[in-house]
Amino acid sequence: MQGISLFQYSLVYNAFSFTFAAMAATTLFLWISRNDVAAPYRTAVTISGIVTFIAAYHYLRIFNSWEAAFDVRNGIVQATGYAFNDAYRYVDWLLTVPLLLVELILVMRLDQKETTNKALTLGFAAALMIVLGYPGEIATDIPTRALWGTLSAIPFVYIVWQLFSGLGASIDRQPEAARGLVKQARLLTFASWGFYPIVYMAPYVHLSGADATTTIQVGYTLADLIAKAVVGVLIFNIAKRKSNIEAA
Amino acid sequence: MQGISLFQYSLVYNAFSFTFAAMAATTLFLWISRNDVAAPYRTAVTISGIVTFIAAYHYLRIFNSWEAAFDVRNGIVQATGYAFNDAYRYVDWLLTVPLLLVELILVMRLDQKETTNKALTLGFAAALMIVLGYPGEIATDIPTRALWGTLSAIPFVYIVWQLFSGLGASIDRQPEAARGLVKQARLLTFASWGFYPIVYMAPYVHLSGADATTTIQVGYTLADLIAKAVVGVLIFNIAKRKSNIEAA
Repeated sequence: MQGISLFQYSLVYNAFSFTFAAMAATTLFLWISRNDVAAPYRTAVTISGIVTFIAAYHYLRIFNSWEAAFDVRNGIVQATGYAFNDAYRYVDWLLTVPLLLVELILVMRLDQKETTNKALTLGFAAALMIVLGYPGEIATDIPTRALWGTLSAIPFVYIVWQLFSGLGASIDRQPEAARGLVKQARLLTFASWGFYPIVYMAPYVHLSGADATTTIQVGYTLADLIAKAVVGVLIFNIAKRKSNIEAA
Repeated sequence: MQGISLFQYSLVYNAFSFTFAAMAATTLFLWISRNDVAAPYRTAVTISGIVTFIAAYHYLRIFNSWEAAFDVRNGIVQATGYAFNDAYRYVDWLLTVPLLLVELILVMRLDQKETTNKALTLGFAAALMIVLGYPGEIATDIPTRALWGTLSAIPFVYIVWQLFSGLGASIDRQPEAARGLVKQARLLTFASWGFYPIVYMAPYVHLSGADATTTIQVGYTLADLIAKAVVGVLIFNIAKRKSNIEAA
């Protein structure tokens, strides 16, 4: 990763710091507020905080790894020889992406059998998607990246299909005042997830070196912020609204 | 431990970081959620979190020790001369393995005498198993490793026998809706524990140097994840389900 400009280095650096702060703050908000929702929704809110907690930990590690990879002095950025560890993202996703689906399922408060069933199948598909994506991410040539990316797209499409068809019927059974928010959470999950394959494909369009790195890092960071912090707060709002309806 | 490849180094490195994150997240989930279960089950859930907390601490130490043992620059891995400290695992197990059995016994809510009795005998057997295993783990020759490994297998077999015969009758007395989960927790405990002797025996089959180290580290890490984090969440689910049954 030679030839990264000071602007690119700083942009990524500050994006990582920003995201750590946002994830940590969301975590604390969710955990502190969990008893403000009715008992059946507390696990969903707790898990939303677990997701942002895991993300905060990894953004701290990613930030430190980025800092160690470059020496910036007198406005000149030089690689130190210590590699920037991209694996942290995949390690993070392996834990958080299944949990993100679990929090969405839990806040819907389906019956126990459907909850277990959906959580297991969607969670497994999500983990498979991450595992298949990684060999492509670290590949140095486009065909290998494209091969694993395509394999990873299979569980991805299955999850999206499940979110819109399998969960569709369950969403229609949600109380009317919460239905809009549940649909929003689903849409935001889908939209932020759509970001990942786009970023993944950045090198396909001959984006390489420092430009590719900057695009990938900032892109994944934005997607993570929406998928974890914004969706987490939305889950809390759904839980709050449903608690109010059920108390009335 | 000369000749470790970049791939092997990174695999172990990322596995340690992943496990720290998973253990810490599980700890917080269990502690935050402990009041979501009925009072008689709170100690079981708290102890499950204590187990993952102790594991999180040790994985942080293990991660740091691994990082200090190697210098990785420009894609080349070199030993620094600082030893990777394997004792952390045994120190961890000495604390957590007896507690793992205690959490399983507590969530079954046996009468007080049986609880104390089983917790003491199984806890003592577990500690003995760890203490006897360690001299073999640090031995440099196979016969010594095999001798201590075999001694350590005696309490191991006793615990497994107790789990399946001694606790078997108690499991049949569990409420029907929770019985399946209790059996699952017992099976998962057994299956993940079965991992440890297999990993321990890796050097027997002439696996040596970097390959043995990588296999042992990744193997123990996976076993720890299942035995502590996955079983911990299962204990919470058992406690939750039993609380619901008793409230109804």
